[in-house]
Amino acid sequence: MTTFDKQFMSRALSLAKQGRFTTSPNPNVGCVIVRNGEVVGKGFHWKAGEAHAEIHALQMAGQKANGATAYVTLEPCSHYGKTPPCADALIRAGIRRVVVAMLDPNPQVAGRGLLKLQQAGIEVLHGLLMDEAEQLNQGFLKRMRTGFPYVQLKLAASLDGRTALASGESKWITSPVARQDVQSFRARASAILTTSATVLADNPALNVRSTDFTRELQNIYPKECLRQPIRIVLDSENQVKPEHIITKSDGECWLIRPNPISQNWCGDVEQIAIPTYKKGIDLVLLMMELAKRNINSVWVESGPTLAGALLTLGLVDELVVYIAPKILGGTAKELINIPALQKLKDAPAFEFINIELIGPDLRLTLRPL
Amino acid sequence: MTTFDKQFMSRALSLAKQGRFTTSPNPNVGCVIVRNGEVVGKGFHWKAGEAHAEIHALQMAGQKANGATAYVTLEPCSHYGKTPPCADALIRAGIRRVVVAMLDPNPQVAGRGLLKLQQAGIEVLHGLLMDEAEQLNQGFLKRMRTGFPYVQLKLAASLDGRTALASGESKWITSPVARQDVQSFRARASAILTTSATVLADNPALNVRSTDFTRELQNIYPKECLRQPIRIVLDSENQVKPEHIITKSDGECWLIRPNPISQNWCGDVEQIAIPTYKKGIDLVLLMMELAKRNINSVWVESGPTLAGALLTLGLVDELVVYIAPKILGGTAKELINIPALQKLKDAPAFEFINIELIGPDLRLTLRPL
Repeated sequence: MTTFDKQFMSRALSLAKQGRFTTSPNPNVGCVIVRNGEVVGKGFHWKAGEAHAEIHALQMAGQKANGATAYVTLEPCSHYGKTPPCADALIRAGIRRVVVAMLDPNPQVAGRGLLKLQQAGIEVLHGLLMDEAEQLNQGFLKRMRTGFPYVQLKLAASLDGRTALASGESKWITSPVARQDVQSFRARASAILTTSATVLADNPALNVRSTDFTRELQNIYPKECLRQPIRIVLDSENQVKPEHIITKSDGECWLIRPNPISQNWCGDVEQIAIPTYKKGIDLVLLMMELAKRNINSVWVESGPTLAGALLTLGLVDELVVYIAPKILGGTAKELINIPALQKLKDAPAFEFINIELIGPDLRLTLRPL
Repeated sequence: MTTFDKQFMSRALSLAKQGRFTTSPNPNVGCVIVRNGEVVGKGFHWKAGEAHAEIHALQMAGQKANGATAYVTLEPCSHYGKTPPCADALIRAGIRRVVVAMLDPNPQVAGRGLLKLQQAGIEVLHGLLMDEAEQLNQGFLKRMRTGFPYVQLKLAASLDGRTALASGESKWITSPVARQDVQSFRARASAILTTSATVLADNPALNVRSTDFTRELQNIYPKECLRQPIRIVLDSENQVKPEHIITKSDGECWLIRPNPISQNWCGDVEQIAIPTYKKGIDLVLLMMELAKRNINSVWVESGPTLAGALLTLGLVDELVVYIAPKILGGTAKELINIPALQKLKDAPAFEFINIELIGPDLRLTLRPL
């Protein structure tokens, strides 16, 4: 592979990112078609059910695709899904060489796309900028590989790890800028997970509000294209009522209940039966069920109990921790509940992946060790 | 001023920094002497009682100082202290122009140094790279300006703001690299402040151990030059005994006791009488007394009670917070005790000044807002 290959794949990755708010449950994919060193076609996947990246790029290239190289961030599909196989389209267009960043772990593809291209006499290379391509589709890839969604646990606390005063006052620990930043994480997630305790305490909508986006986010993700992540509420005692905003506001709301009951909802509400385990919903079964329902990624906004339970079960792939430069003191509310540790070495341990100032606050991204 | 002036002042500042572990209670000062664009002399202050930066530089320059420009990071002194006035030496050497980063707020100088130079017909400029020069001597400057030392509060906690398990186990939350990093802060401080509670619980030496330095620190601060910060222990109930390591190990140890008693110490121990206020030592009186005793900067390593008391009284100039990427949970020990807040807006608030990864841990530096 040449430095040209790398440049074009980089462009394909940039294109792919443009779909990061809208493709769920599909992966983000970008494609660049190059002939004689000139980009003759480019495209990215925008929305499930609509054309794949390769098709957009081929349409733009037209006749010029003949003899050209296609750079694709994910292996072209070989199966009939909601759209016909991209591998066939590339062959038909006379593409001579295909460079792919990574294989598609979707069992319906998993190498068959590249095989098909090779069998048609096309030169096939893969693995270029693979890490960047992995990064792009953490949710989709985890679901395909493990049958679990990629879980991001959002935490927000003072310097001393507190989330609210003893009086309950918690609005707001973090700054408006940090709360805007949260909107962009929500907008990327397939689903947002919370608990009935949070719904009963704060009555939040937990949906994506483009009016709360930063100007930058408004520009790259216009209001007309808004996709609402599915709001999922752990409600083991059927406490969420049709009056709660989360059941009425835009977007789907799934109530996780061991024993669903008949209720009249105004909004788009579905009850999903998941049995309990110990004192709450069985979170492992829940995650498996969510993956089956094509949930790639889950953004968790909850209190200390669910946070602790997810951590204890090893279900968290990423912590996103907002730290406000304040001190609330030892009487204020704790960030995470986990059973008392016997030994320091038993503490859930992480590594810092990213550290960024968001206005006056700090955003830490960590992964479990 | 020219870009040359800035370059030479930068070099003078770099020189000044070489004294950062040793000059206390004196400020760090660097000096560069330049003639016809060539550096003919340079020097920095190394230790109280020894020659000032200007004298070192003049000695190196010799005859070449005649007609040259001197760059000094702090106004040259005009008074007889432990050494004769530097202003006189610069005049005598025939220096034609003096560029100074900032005035010396020491009331014995405070502009008189520059005045003396001007009266001798020397061209005098000041204010070049003033912010950097301020940075260099936060402790000295605060003491001179306010009569209080510069107080750095060291905190170390898990992501969720916990310092020890309920069982008491706290060794170690942070990594060896972070603990080495602490050594360099200790080494720069005039004094290290702790409490009898910490002494009774951990029996620490709290001194500077060059064997614990990073290799980098060992190179710039050789063992032979080690200056021990004074260890100060708040001991309102006279609980510290001659057996405690802190009273026996290298360096001075000051016990702050409302009612000093006669005891036989093996080490260099002094008792200082400070009255109590509410439930402990009067911390405001303590800090004023420390400044009177030429303590420029205090590095605090203590438990949540002293940390909270200093914060509540507004005595902290800087927080240095080590965050280990671990979760200890809500049953673990809290980082800071302050009285319960009635309103979020009453929370002590800070701004992030510096954020750095130290091995696997994060070091946050903050200043009060």
